[in-house]
Order: sequence, then structure tokens, then C-alpha cells
Amino acid sequence: MIGAESLVRTLVAGGVNVCFTNPGTSEMHFVTALDRVDGMRCVLGLFEGVVTGAADGYGRMADKPASTLLHLGPGLANGLANLHNANRARTPMVNIVGDHATYHRRYDAPLTSDIEGAARPFSHWVKTSPDAQSVARDGAEAIAAASTPPGRIATLILPADTAWNEGTAIAAVPSIPQRAKVAREALAEALAALRSKEPCVLLLSGKALREHPLNVAGKIARATGAKLLAQTSNARIQRGAGRVSIDRIPYPVDQAVALLKDVRHVVLIEAKAPVGFFAYPNKPSVMTPEGCRIHTLATPLEDGVHALEWLADELGAGGQTAPVEPLKKPEIPTGAITLESLAAAIGALLPDQAIVADESITSGRNLFGFTKGSAPHDWLQNMGGSIGLGLPMATGAAVACPDRKVVCLESDGSGMYTLQALWTQAREKLDVTTVLFNNRVYNILKGELANVGAGNPGRKALDMLEIGRPDIDWCGLANAMGVEASRATTIDEFVDQFRTGLKTKGPYLVEVML
Amino acid sequence: MIGAESLVRTLVAGGVNVCFTNPGTSEMHFVTALDRVDGMRCVLGLFEGVVTGAADGYGRMADKPASTLLHLGPGLANGLANLHNANRARTPMVNIVGDHATYHRRYDAPLTSDIEGAARPFSHWVKTSPDAQSVARDGAEAIAAASTPPGRIATLILPADTAWNEGTAIAAVPSIPQRAKVAREALAEALAALRSKEPCVLLLSGKALREHPLNVAGKIARATGAKLLAQTSNARIQRGAGRVSIDRIPYPVDQAVALLKDVRHVVLIEAKAPVGFFAYPNKPSVMTPEGCRIHTLATPLEDGVHALEWLADELGAGGQTAPVEPLKKPEIPTGAITLESLAAAIGALLPDQAIVADESITSGRNLFGFTKGSAPHDWLQNMGGSIGLGLPMATGAAVACPDRKVVCLESDGSGMYTLQALWTQAREKLDVTTVLFNNRVYNILKGELANVGAGNPGRKALDMLEIGRPDIDWCGLANAMGVEASRATTIDEFVDQFRTGLKTKGPYLVEVML
Repeated sequence: MIGAESLVRTLVAGGVNVCFTNPGTSEMHFVTALDRVDGMRCVLGLFEGVVTGAADGYGRMADKPASTLLHLGPGLANGLANLHNANRARTPMVNIVGDHATYHRRYDAPLTSDIEGAARPFSHWVKTSPDAQSVARDGAEAIAAASTPPGRIATLILPADTAWNEGTAIAAVPSIPQRAKVAREALAEALAALRSKEPCVLLLSGKALREHPLNVAGKIARATGAKLLAQTSNARIQRGAGRVSIDRIPYPVDQAVALLKDVRHVVLIEAKAPVGFFAYPNKPSVMTPEGCRIHTLATPLEDGVHALEWLADELGAGGQTAPVEPLKKPEIPTGAITLESLAAAIGALLPDQAIVADESITSGRNLFGFTKGSAPHDWLQNMGGSIGLGLPMATGAAVACPDRKVVCLESDGSGMYTLQALWTQAREKLDVTTVLFNNRVYNILKGELANVGAGNPGRKALDMLEIGRPDIDWCGLANAMGVEASRATTIDEFVDQFRTGLKTKGPYLVEVML
Repeated sequence: MIGAESLVRTLVAGGVNVCFTNPGTSEMHFVTALDRVDGMRCVLGLFEGVVTGAADGYGRMADKPASTLLHLGPGLANGLANLHNANRARTPMVNIVGDHATYHRRYDAPLTSDIEGAARPFSHWVKTSPDAQSVARDGAEAIAAASTPPGRIATLILPADTAWNEGTAIAAVPSIPQRAKVAREALAEALAALRSKEPCVLLLSGKALREHPLNVAGKIARATGAKLLAQTSNARIQRGAGRVSIDRIPYPVDQAVALLKDVRHVVLIEAKAPVGFFAYPNKPSVMTPEGCRIHTLATPLEDGVHALEWLADELGAGGQTAPVEPLKKPEIPTGAITLESLAAAIGALLPDQAIVADESITSGRNLFGFTKGSAPHDWLQNMGGSIGLGLPMATGAAVACPDRKVVCLESDGSGMYTLQALWTQAREKLDVTTVLFNNRVYNILKGELANVGAGNPGRKALDMLEIGRPDIDWCGLANAMGVEASRATTIDEFVDQFRTGLKTKGPYLVEVML
């Protein structure tokens, strides 16, 4: 079999059975190999940011890598922003990037570029296959690299002749190392902090935000009086009724500093020490007060779940009852649309086992509180801060979990970066209800402009922050890409339309006019 | 004044008076500085590929750089594909990329990435300003780097504190080197080839495709019997009635090889030796036959215009009459839509001094022939092969030349990568008529799949090439972003609607159903 087929078969044998694609000439042998191999679902994106963002959403929900298929350096480049986000979320992903045939590169044809150079800032593992005989083995190595916990971006570059020349048999995936357990010294330090009687925060992220470790953390908190907090952004939080609820460190620096002002110890479990998303003149970069000590119990690469269990054991917290949320949905609101009433409506109607892909930015700041006692759900956030992840991430999550409803909470500014995801949702009939917050402004930037002390914006500056004139018709965009949509101008309309979306098996978009 | 203002003032003083922007928090001081400085037009794009593609179109038409304003590594990453295209077109461009404050980088906040690493594969010049005192001088250097002929991509990274701290006065742009004149030896070699009586091609690209050098080349061709050809893709060709017409080397390898099969000498003038856009099994990478000699008269970095004049002088070709095209428009067609009838209609109606932004791919292969005798116009192509340039390039060309009609010839597959450009056209009321060829397929890939010998595609492979199901409604997309649009299903409808577009002062889109 040819190299391309040896790679596809290796991927499938290695458990990679979804490929998000936007192929070109140099990937045609890979594409036709897909026809000859069972077990690989191919999902086309009309822009590469959709492809990599979908692979991120998939990887977070499937806990294993999807593959992507991208066309040379520029095709990869279009996917880099969402690779950055996936990289920050530690999502496993195997990117296959076609390149010119090895012997053709020297001619510097128009699409030639330094693909490895472009991939490296956003990948943990980068390799160019030298020949068709190496492709299967390189693919197996890419799977292993991507699957190394907690998850990595592996980018394999495939010159066209390595795809079309004779390859090898399927290659077996090398053994994947388990996550390192934390050191006894780290545990001892965390224990001392927790037993110090001084104000202590357990700061969680990564896999520690799944249902079971949160439950353990809840017991530890109850036993010790420590406060549980999650990072501002997290790859996936399991929350809602029956689970231990956890607040996040607020994005605004002043709020974060205020929340942490009396804390003396922060114990990190797969989390990073809290720093500002941006720097601002006359505001600190570090959110914890002077004198507060940071104790790294588990780095993001270590096994925080085991660390929590060990901690609970040592503390004898096993007998505690974790403070799980009761099922307590907000009342269905009525009247005008406000950010509060929207949050209440979403909290009330969120279906059981929903997957929430949240890129609602300023419009969604109330959502977390109002969904605390909703039906159990998973909450996915943008970890890298590069907007344009929401619609693709929802797309990939829906591919990973066809039996669950995906609710995408998207802002208009962010949504415009990768709106092509709606087309993929329509083609694949993905079960995604999108709530599109249309406020016609990069609202966060108005606040940031004040925060950085850039002065009063004039007309020219405001024109760079406001995205009305012309107003974007999101129902029109959705319909034009085959997605049913409706516009809500009161909260009652929103409730009706959101219900319709949730009842619809397939994609639906509710445009909320703010 | 603060660093950001020193930079904006330096840009304006250095002749850079357009900024295509998609800013974020780290660029807020730059944005408000724009309010305090006259002479900088700011144009917002809702996606960074629009921003860099527009700067490419602007630079090609203005023959000087526009600036861009991008948000950290991922914002730059979203613009890289069209930077690749601009790089290949040797378009002058000054990118300003915001970064975290210098002292904040060590905290590895979510948006942190290796910006220089991401920029380098697609930029000639990359620099990070170390402090506010350096910003103006670095900006002036970036202008000089970008303006160095034939044109370069300069990327200046601006940490937020270098923007908000106290800067310097305006910095003067260092002197910009002129293009090197070609060496006498190169001229002698070209002369010998032209005088050899053996079949000879003058292969032109770059600035050699403007009206005057083409006229000189036409005289040389007439005096020597050499054939004029242009590269397959070129940044800008001046053509139409009253100008010397030049055919391009065809994209399909077999056609290119057939065209060149008897050629013994190729004289390169700002062009590269003809190679395949891609490699294909059992097809050559080099388009010229064995034994054909390649003579580099002027590299793309050298002054090909002067080289042509010198060549004409030496050949005594000055007395020749250049073979300029008479004004000869095609008949207005009627009946069904075919690629020929569309080309004829466009050729007949193309306005005087139109700027054609061509990304019509397979749908446009007849256009060049049918517009040879149209009213004089400029023809812009995608030089880097990364699709998604057409709509942004048209946008930038319209900003550069507000008194000229821009005609954008765009395919549906390519258009979807950067459709957000339509919104910018609506906001800025840019005079662009877009002809959108809606064939619901990556048509070129169907041909390429056969060319690379990848076998008969099955359903899964075809699904990666066909972009119907659901069909995209381009009128709907355009309307949703504030652009008037109509759909043509016969050539008569097309003629009517294209005329309407051309009469409309502002953006208009004609969706052609193929």
C-alpha cells in the first residue's frame, strides 16, 4: 500500500478515527486513501481555523486525539490560532500537513514555505516524513506524542511523494507514558499549607475539574476550610446538579486581586499561579498578594487527580460529604433581554448532559453563576484567548458526543472569525444550539481601553471597537450556510427560540439582540 | 508623547497613511493614538486574513506599504496565509503586532506565544521593540525595510509597555536603496540569446508587467521574434486596449510543457524559471524542455524595467512599433451561463481603468483571453497560491484607488476563507463589484486528484472536494454583511446584474450559479 494509506490505517489502528479536513492537491492521496479504509470519519471545514478548533473540541470531549488534514504552510497557518488555543488547553491532536514532493521543494514553487518553522511555535512535536517507508512509523509516533498526558499537539508534515510512493504495513503506536505522580515533598508542602489554619486556596485546572476529582477536592475543602477555585479559563469543567461547584478567578484584575487579597497559601493542582490575562499600567501582573505562598502540588503535566486522592487520604477527608450542588434551576424569566435574564433562561433550560462551548466573553459573565444548579453538564472555555474558537469547538464536541446536546454561547465579534463552522454543522447535521450574542461591539475592548489608561477614545478609535455599521445579520449568515435560525428581541422570544433550538435535532442558531 | 503615538506619527511622516486593523487589548494605545494623529486612515477587518490581504491589495496598487495592526501571536497567525501571498507578490507591508508588556511575558499568560517565530517564515524583516524610546526608530526602519524594492514584509512587534511609556519624537525613515541595475554580463547573455535565431521567450513578472516596460518588451519581441510570456501568476499586469498583451504560462503542467516544448532560450526579467505549481507523479517539475537555457537578465530583486530599456537600446528596437491591442470588446452574450459566455460578458463590460482582483481559479480560465482588448485595466493575481486572497485584495485595492472600479472575480471555495471582507467593503463603502462563481465544488481539486494519479474518488473523498450539501447562499452571506447582491442563472441576468453592480457606487455582489 502507498504511504498515505499506511498512515490512514495506522491512525485508525491507533484509535484516531476522526479527521477534520481542508485538503489540497498535495493531500489527494490521503483523501482517496480514506475511501479504502473503514473507521475514519472525515469532516470537511471550509476554513482551517474551523478544522483545528473542531479538533480541539473533539479532543477535549473524547479524551483522545482527532487528526486534521491541512494544505501546506498557509493551510497550517490558517489553523494556527486555534492550535494555540488547543495547545494551551493541552488537547491531544494529530495534524497532518501536506507538503510539496521532496524533490519539488528546491524549485520554490508558489506555495513553498517553512512549514516546520510555522508549526513549531504552536506544536509540541513536529516532524517531516522523509520517505514513504517512514510515514506509518511517523504517524504512530505522532499519535503517541499527541496522546502523552495531559495531551499535546503533534504536527506531521507529509511531502506528497511520501504519500504516493510505496509505504509499509501499519505501524504500532509506541507505548504512551502515564502521567507522573506527584512527589511526596510536594504533598507534604501542600498538607502543611492546608493544616496551617491560614487562608488557603486549592486552585484547580486540567483533569482535576472532572466530576470525581472535584468531589474529592470538595471533601478536602470541607475538612480543611480551604477554598476551591478554578483558573479563569479551563479546558473542561464538569458541573451542575450533583457535582461540586467551583468558582473561577475573575478575568478583571481588580476583581481577582480583591478575591485573593487575604489568601496566604495557594495550592496548585494542574493549575498555574494566577496572573493577569494582560498587563495594565499601575496594576499588578501577579494576582496573589505579597506574602502569599504558591505551592505546586501537581503541575499541569502531573497527575492532579491522584494528588487530590492522596491529599484526601492523608487528611482523612474520605468520610466527609462533598458539598455537591442540589438541582436548582433559575426561574424562567420574562420581559426585557438583560445579561441576567439571558443567563437565567439558559440556566433554566440547559439540558441534562449538555456540552457548553463558551465564547460569550462580556455577554456571558453571569452565565456561570446561573448554571451552577442546572442539569449536569460539561463547560468548555477558550484557554488561549485567541477568539474564534467557540463555533468550531462546538462543532468538534458534537462530533465527539453525538448523543449529547451542544450549546454554543458565542459573541458576535468572536463568531465572525470562524463563522464557516456553521456550514460544517449543517453538513454533518450536528446537534448544536448556538446562542449568538449580538451586541455589535468588541465590548471587552471598550473596557480594556479604559483599563490600560489609553484615554478617551475618539471616533476613529471607536470605529475600531464597534462592529455595527453595517449591523451583521446573524440569522442571514446562518441561513446562508444551511443552519436554521431566529432572532430574539425579548427574553420571552429567547426562551421560545432556545427551546426550539434544543428540541431541534441538528444545528440551530438563536440570535440575541443586545 | 507615548511610544504608540511616536510610531503613528512616524508612519504618517513616512508616507504610510492607511492602517488595516484588528486590534486587541495590547494595541489600545496605538488605537487611541490614531485619534490624535491626522493623516492615517483606519480600516477595520473582522478577521486578520482580511487585514493582511487588504494590505496586499493596497500595496500592489499604491506602490507603497500600508500598515496593519494585529493582536499578538494568534492575531498574526490568522493573517499569515495572506502574508505568504503578499510575500510572494513582493508587496510592501508594515505589520504592527502587539505583544504583552515586556515585564508580563515571563508569566506566560494565555495569549503568550513566540511571535517572532511565527512571523519569520512569512516576513523579510522582524523586530521586537525593546522599549518606548526605540519605537519610533524601529517604525522608521520597518518602513524602510518594507519599501526596499521590489517590496518586503516588515513585521514590528510592539510590547504593550513600549506603546504606553514615554517615547521619542518622530523618527526619519532611513534612506531606501534603489533597485540594483542588472550587470553588463547578464545583458550580454540575454542579447546573445535573442540574437541566436533560436526560439526564445522573454519571461516577465514583477514591475516589468506595467504598461511602459511591456511596451518596451513588445518592441524587443517585434525586433527579435522572441515570444513574450508572463508567469502563471503575477502581482499586477497592466493590460487591455492600447497596451501590449502578454499571455501567461498555463497552470496545468501538460499545457505549460506543450507551450514551451520548442523553446531554446528563456530570458528572465523579474520572473522565475517556470516550474510546476505542484509536483505530479510522472510529470516534470521543470516546465522547459531539456536543452533549453535559462538566462537571468533581471532577478525579481533587480530593475527589470531598466534592463528592458537597455536591451531595447542595444537591439536598436526603439524604432519598432509595439504591438498594442486595439480596443476590441467581446459581443455581449446571451443564453445560458458558460465559462465562455461569462468571460465574454466581463470582457465586454469591464470599465475603463478597472482593477481586477482575480481569484476565480477554474471558473476564470477563459477570462484572460476575453479581456485582452477590453478597456485598459490592472489585473491582480494570487501569487502565493493560498486561497482566500481575492475578497481582501479587492478591498485593499479599492482603498488605494477610490476613483477606480474594482472587479473581484472570486470562486465560492476560495471566497469562504475570508468572506468577512465583504463587511469591510460595506462599512467603507468601497467601490467593488464582486462576481462570485458558485459551482459548489473545489473544482480544481477534482482535476488535481486525477493529475496526481490518486485513483477514482469514492463518496468519502468526493465529500472532501464538493462544497454543496448544504449549498451556500452567497447573496444571503453578502446581504447579512451589508452588501447588496443578486443571483444570476442565465447570462442575460448576469449581464444585467453585472451592469447594476458596475453602476452602483459601493460594493455589490453578483452570484453566478454554475
